[in-house]
Amino acid sequence: MTELTNKRIVVLCGGVGAAKLLRGLIKVVDPKSVTAIVNTGDDLSMHGLHISPDLDTIIYTLANEINPDTGWGLKDEGWKAMDMVAKYGGIDWFRLGDRDLGTHLFRTQKLSEGSTLSEITHEIATKWGVAVRVIPMSDDPVRTIVTTVGGEELNFQDYFVRLSHDVEIANIRFEGHETAQPASDVISEILTADIVLIAPSNPLVSIAPILSISGIEDALRKRSENVIAISGIINGKALKGPAGRLLNELGYEASATAVAEIYKNFVGTFVIDDVDRSECKRIQELGLRCMITDTVMTDGAKSADLCRTVLSEIIN
Amino acid sequence: MTELTNKRIVVLCGGVGAAKLLRGLIKVVDPKSVTAIVNTGDDLSMHGLHISPDLDTIIYTLANEINPDTGWGLKDEGWKAMDMVAKYGGIDWFRLGDRDLGTHLFRTQKLSEGSTLSEITHEIATKWGVAVRVIPMSDDPVRTIVTTVGGEELNFQDYFVRLSHDVEIANIRFEGHETAQPASDVISEILTADIVLIAPSNPLVSIAPILSISGIEDALRKRSENVIAISGIINGKALKGPAGRLLNELGYEASATAVAEIYKNFVGTFVIDDVDRSECKRIQELGLRCMITDTVMTDGAKSADLCRTVLSEIIN
Repeated sequence: MTELTNKRIVVLCGGVGAAKLLRGLIKVVDPKSVTAIVNTGDDLSMHGLHISPDLDTIIYTLANEINPDTGWGLKDEGWKAMDMVAKYGGIDWFRLGDRDLGTHLFRTQKLSEGSTLSEITHEIATKWGVAVRVIPMSDDPVRTIVTTVGGEELNFQDYFVRLSHDVEIANIRFEGHETAQPASDVISEILTADIVLIAPSNPLVSIAPILSISGIEDALRKRSENVIAISGIINGKALKGPAGRLLNELGYEASATAVAEIYKNFVGTFVIDDVDRSECKRIQELGLRCMITDTVMTDGAKSADLCRTVLSEIIN
Repeated sequence: MTELTNKRIVVLCGGVGAAKLLRGLIKVVDPKSVTAIVNTGDDLSMHGLHISPDLDTIIYTLANEINPDTGWGLKDEGWKAMDMVAKYGGIDWFRLGDRDLGTHLFRTQKLSEGSTLSEITHEIATKWGVAVRVIPMSDDPVRTIVTTVGGEELNFQDYFVRLSHDVEIANIRFEGHETAQPASDVISEILTADIVLIAPSNPLVSIAPILSISGIEDALRKRSENVIAISGIINGKALKGPAGRLLNELGYEASATAVAEIYKNFVGTFVIDDVDRSECKRIQELGLRCMITDTVMTDGAKSADLCRTVLSEIIN
């Protein structure tokens, strides 16, 4: 495996699934050679604070501070602030723990002083001792907006958390993506990495916002031979979250193949789970290499195994 | 004392000293007949949050939730958020406890939705079961700015908390006061109250911002026979805070008489502590009634005694 150690790996990331992948990846390659480019379409302004759920999930996981029961938020968390907000009748459905609030307070203060989200993210990651380079997809605001079949427009967290994604969706768009620029080094990292991984995150609401930013999909196309996507759909649904259902609602098949179809123009290798091996032929017909392995990352060791398997086959 | 019970009392308030006065006052008169008009010149924006220290000190005190050790903030407080901010190297000199943060989150969210500070203050007070009507001096931003002898301009909390008011001041101004309007009912409350009390708060940085708002001093002048000010200066200095020193730095004598001089045009009765009885003659020469009593509010009972003494003498 030593030949993998210093390979430079870029990972396009949503939240929980990507965090699990990274947790394994840093056991296989030098964390300092890993760059995570993270979705910020889920970001929100609430209580006056700038909240970046996916960035925080990635950093907290890499810092071994993630709440293991939820996959988001910090361990050893307190809820005094939220209890007060609830007492006042304020917005308490987006659960912000007391420790977690410290991150949002710091980020918001620094943004108000003119720092970029990239700079602040770097500061936060550094203070946690995270060696992976964590970069938001853009320093400009891009907001994922879903339209329900009833025509209502919802901010992503309204849909995802407040309504527990229990409402049928007719459309998804990424407000601001037309003018947003990739954060500094996003394009150069993609163009110069040995391998670009697309994490098994939700293709429609975690990876698509990243792809919507000017120049990112073009850069991936140039590197498609070295771009590996891991299917977030296993046996027709996501392990967590509404990806399968969303695919159906937006006119796709809920299958690994459908995800491969979405990614086919900028991906060289598509990784599916053993249970979906029957889909390999269709994926190959899309012009992609199909890799079959165990993709369920139940712990850090299995996540590392997945990364080792995937990277070895491509790099060797 | 029954004749006092239903008298309508308006109190002009800063933070800690005013809160102590109110805590006694509501033992002497019906809390529902008391209106607190509170300084917001100390308000600040920090971490993206709108913080109103004097409003919170008043409400927390009346709710019996104030931290008894500090006189500000909440009891049973946690510091997880601040510990995180400190970890990140953020601004941690203005101590915001986890419970207290809930108040700022709620306030900031409601402001962003278009509620006025008055409306939000009423909601917060109501949720705490506070029967006193608590009104900010203005819904418009007014910010107390101090200029040091070195010419540096500082926001009030920078001066007061960050620098522990340990720097010589050349000037104080209230940014925004020229265009700020009194909050709804501030003027009518003053004009129709049986008694207007000026709490023993800092005359230069707690009461002066209130007086700087258009129409408030005029309203007080019309009621001056029924306006009673309690000196915040005892034996040449404040019991707490830099009032004595500030008076000196800005060219006043550090004495109860100097405060009476500042207030003389809109106050009928000036209350001084027993230890300052020698100043009564000078205060009378300013055209004010001088009342001498024990003004040190070491507990709620002594605060109630002070209120009973002052109100009885004027009302009877």
